[in-house]
Amino acid sequence: MSFDELEALAAEIRALLIETVARQGGHLAPNLGVVELTLALHRVFNSPEDKIIWDVGHQSYVHKIVTGRWKDFHTLRQRGGISGFPKPEESPHDVFATGHSSTSISVGLGLAKARDLRGEDYKVVAVIGDGSLTGGLAFEALNNAGHLKTNLIVVLNDNEMSIAPNVGALSTYLSQARLNPTLYKFRADLEQFIQKIPKVGEVTFRYWDKLKDILKYLVIPGILFEELGFTYIGPVDGHNLRQLTQTLADAARRQGPVLIHVRTKKGKGYPPAEENPVRFHGVPGFEVSTGRVPSPNGPPTYTEVFGATLMEAAAQDDRIVAITAAMKEGTGLQDFAQTYPARFFDVGIAEGHAVTMAGGLARAGMKPVVAIYSSFLQRAFDQILHDVCLQNLPVVFAIDRAGVVGEDGPTHHGVFDLAYLRMMPGITIMVPKDEHELRQMLLWALKLDKPVAIRYPRGQGNGGSLSTVQVFNPGEAEVLRTGEHAAILALGPMVKKAEEAAELLKTVGIHCTVINARFVKPLDRRTIIHWARRVPHLITVEDHVLTGGFGSAVLELLAEAGIHNVHISRLGYPDQFIETASIPELHELYGLTAEGIFQLVAGRPLSLASGKK
Amino acid sequence: MSFDELEALAAEIRALLIETVARQGGHLAPNLGVVELTLALHRVFNSPEDKIIWDVGHQSYVHKIVTGRWKDFHTLRQRGGISGFPKPEESPHDVFATGHSSTSISVGLGLAKARDLRGEDYKVVAVIGDGSLTGGLAFEALNNAGHLKTNLIVVLNDNEMSIAPNVGALSTYLSQARLNPTLYKFRADLEQFIQKIPKVGEVTFRYWDKLKDILKYLVIPGILFEELGFTYIGPVDGHNLRQLTQTLADAARRQGPVLIHVRTKKGKGYPPAEENPVRFHGVPGFEVSTGRVPSPNGPPTYTEVFGATLMEAAAQDDRIVAITAAMKEGTGLQDFAQTYPARFFDVGIAEGHAVTMAGGLARAGMKPVVAIYSSFLQRAFDQILHDVCLQNLPVVFAIDRAGVVGEDGPTHHGVFDLAYLRMMPGITIMVPKDEHELRQMLLWALKLDKPVAIRYPRGQGNGGSLSTVQVFNPGEAEVLRTGEHAAILALGPMVKKAEEAAELLKTVGIHCTVINARFVKPLDRRTIIHWARRVPHLITVEDHVLTGGFGSAVLELLAEAGIHNVHISRLGYPDQFIETASIPELHELYGLTAEGIFQLVAGRPLSLASGKK
Repeated sequence: MSFDELEALAAEIRALLIETVARQGGHLAPNLGVVELTLALHRVFNSPEDKIIWDVGHQSYVHKIVTGRWKDFHTLRQRGGISGFPKPEESPHDVFATGHSSTSISVGLGLAKARDLRGEDYKVVAVIGDGSLTGGLAFEALNNAGHLKTNLIVVLNDNEMSIAPNVGALSTYLSQARLNPTLYKFRADLEQFIQKIPKVGEVTFRYWDKLKDILKYLVIPGILFEELGFTYIGPVDGHNLRQLTQTLADAARRQGPVLIHVRTKKGKGYPPAEENPVRFHGVPGFEVSTGRVPSPNGPPTYTEVFGATLMEAAAQDDRIVAITAAMKEGTGLQDFAQTYPARFFDVGIAEGHAVTMAGGLARAGMKPVVAIYSSFLQRAFDQILHDVCLQNLPVVFAIDRAGVVGEDGPTHHGVFDLAYLRMMPGITIMVPKDEHELRQMLLWALKLDKPVAIRYPRGQGNGGSLSTVQVFNPGEAEVLRTGEHAAILALGPMVKKAEEAAELLKTVGIHCTVINARFVKPLDRRTIIHWARRVPHLITVEDHVLTGGFGSAVLELLAEAGIHNVHISRLGYPDQFIETASIPELHELYGLTAEGIFQLVAGRPLSLASGKK
Repeated sequence: MSFDELEALAAEIRALLIETVARQGGHLAPNLGVVELTLALHRVFNSPEDKIIWDVGHQSYVHKIVTGRWKDFHTLRQRGGISGFPKPEESPHDVFATGHSSTSISVGLGLAKARDLRGEDYKVVAVIGDGSLTGGLAFEALNNAGHLKTNLIVVLNDNEMSIAPNVGALSTYLSQARLNPTLYKFRADLEQFIQKIPKVGEVTFRYWDKLKDILKYLVIPGILFEELGFTYIGPVDGHNLRQLTQTLADAARRQGPVLIHVRTKKGKGYPPAEENPVRFHGVPGFEVSTGRVPSPNGPPTYTEVFGATLMEAAAQDDRIVAITAAMKEGTGLQDFAQTYPARFFDVGIAEGHAVTMAGGLARAGMKPVVAIYSSFLQRAFDQILHDVCLQNLPVVFAIDRAGVVGEDGPTHHGVFDLAYLRMMPGITIMVPKDEHELRQMLLWALKLDKPVAIRYPRGQGNGGSLSTVQVFNPGEAEVLRTGEHAAILALGPMVKKAEEAAELLKTVGIHCTVINARFVKPLDRRTIIHWARRVPHLITVEDHVLTGGFGSAVLELLAEAGIHNVHISRLGYPDQFIETASIPELHELYGLTAEGIFQLVAGRPLSLASGKK
């Protein structure tokens, strides 16, 4: 293919990306930004012989389109369709599944060393965004790769922002490297300066500092990477196919680790996405002609209620600070950031640091709220344990996107949090049944002066005015209805389904107690033991894996209390990674529905239940 | 105090350190290295008003001695005594508990921002070793601190090695910065070069590259840190009290983030430790006059058996590679590293990278064995889940120091691993009852072609020849004796105690089944269900927290199987951080002894059990 033909192909791919994502949602801006880069990579390298690893795989759509998945691309992010992330089961071109950020250099180094040891000679290319580079894992890998000196190509896809506009000194550093005109000016200055030297007479130390400053800028492009043992090439225009191809081919011929600094524009080729790359990073679907994203009708999302409640609390208590890890908009903190810029910290894609810094803030008298998605918070497991719980510090974890999240699939489902938090001594874990309860729990958590986690799902709440008075007694579960045939202990959004199930069960003469558990740790011992003694069948329902989850906590409590004459059924996700599908589809598939609960309690499907008991 | 008096004090402190650690073990070399640094810090800064954070707090002994704990220092690392790590409950001078590496800059940044927001003006100093700097968390914090620009002092304690000799490009970088003579030579070269310019006539571009190279070296000390937004000062001689004091005072006057590069010698002042700082990093006790560390009599340690078995397997299969994170000696890999240097990877204090790189190695056809201590592996939770289990890659996790570890205390006890691994789909988890079984399990794991974890304790095995034939049937628990009154399901080193308990119980007429569970995941369903149906009382015993642990897995299994007429007691650690004490003391304290098991089964203490049933 000629470069002209490749450019025509690029335009065609962009149209497909826009059309597909407009229809069914997905990561648009990152993929529009890497169209030329992907084509150049596949022109220079021979995938799957050569290995291309996509850091945070949501930038792999174009790669999928050009490696045999064009025809099926319309099934993107749907159940049984093309995954929104690299998936080795899907294609040999998808070398490694990358759902979380900053892993690609580590993976690439592993592949490269395996290649060396096995006497093979393929190329390994890790493509990583500037945002992902703020993650400590990427640094650990750069440090190790620079030491091991094997052939490895890192393509830094620098689009001047990660998910949210980039933060951190590294970002400043890269933006300096980007300023070619300035750089050239410095070069010119230096030449001039050096040419003046004879006139001055001799070089004395008073010129030293000035010279040093100038030279620092001079060698800046890449010195940080060169110091870590990489050969630095760039910056290169990421939308110039010819330049990209030449540079990649040059890198492929070099020995040792090479870093190519490629500048791309997020959203490239679709004006609405170029103008608002944050909005179009991950987008639920939109109108192509206008770029208008329809705002959903109905109740506010949990995320919005969290943001609004935090604003309310922050106005009353100036010790409240908010921390996130490149998820300002996603966690609903944009108003907080605007109103309280000094009290807001976006630390980049660095969950571990976010949590440990929160520990420091809390130790010195602040009340930090760490807002991170459930699956990303997994990355700070040790920091939550040591830097918060061990020291009993008042940090509030606002865990958004808990439970299954739908189309983003297995790497993004937040289905492990209760299990990994529950083992931590001293933490309080709450799950609100609706957005009203989220508000009450957050306000209470901010006064608790201990580590607290609140986990809540993606999407809209149940509706109704937020000022509705509900009784929230800390530590207590809420008994919503009583019945002697069975007790359903439900968590979060499962409470509503339990109530619906109880209604259905009533029609067949089965009377259930429904309990909104609220607290996963500590459990409301009194209420749970009371009902476990009173009913023959206890059912736990959670939007979480069964292994080590809420149901397990109930089993532990009852075993400890010596209660073993009640039959306990636990409803939740089985011991496997949960696939990609919409949230309702997944709930349906795993029986987390009113019908599923009905069947478990009644011992027969709803369809067979008409009237007979 | 005059500098002379301070030097005398330093000598006195060194004597106390050597004497105390020789008697009861501890971290000697790191503390001998920071005597002057600690004295200088406390001279310049006003602790606890100013905050000093010790990264990996095992370098805080001197700090403890000079902040009111001289008198009690002889209780170091003993139950109820002075902790081997900073402990806020112990003293207001211990600002933050730091047991794991690379946290201090994050903590310091949190304290500094809290100070700014509250309008206070104390100084914040994070003291971090060059080894700890290889951890990604430190980089995340540097990146964020360089961006936030608040006043924060980072003291880089560069002792040219972390626990094991340092690895990685950063280490090369620092060692270049250390080479002052070379640096000075470059400066001289440059001057000479520039002075030649008039003779050449005019500066043309053919000099450009040479100039660039020279200048890069020129500005090297600190450019990496300066690019991240820090003011770099150093390197400074870390044993020169006068120079240290001046430099720290200078740093305290500066605005914004400052990094002081201090060069120290690990083991300074005690020749055996200077010669062998790795041996004297953490040492169990030794003879002061000779530095001889008595080698323990008796059976080999689990660590040794792991190392030897891996050597045996590696000789047969050249796909086997070993990875550790600055724990080569600690995990028993020194022979492997020596025999197979190309197949050995010490990635520095970077557990996340170690695991993800193992994923890459496995994907490309190797069989990686990741050997990391239990409590440190916590830091790679997300990487184990995503980069190994999600992709079902054949990585073997050799988890050393599982269970309580004794004197290193709460941050080092490996009591969470079963709970955090058990929720991961597709992983096999084994616990050997002794070193023979460790060998069998490891050999089997290397053939399994799936993610596997084997956890084993610190210390010696049970003895006997390693060639003893034992039947190891994969997937199966081992029934060691049978009895109908109760069944004890024990794990790892608890198996022996269960057998002892069964002997004691027999004397009072209680006949127990004792089962070596072996597999935590998947459980041996058949055996467990069989015995649960047959005995009235089932007891699980694990050297692990009860929340989400092995006992919970058994509860889940029995609930799922609908078995609820057996009384289940779980023995393990309660929901709290486990304190510092020797391993036998801790087992005693929490009932993980033959007597403890006896009491649980018999319902009365052993002392009251003489003969009556």
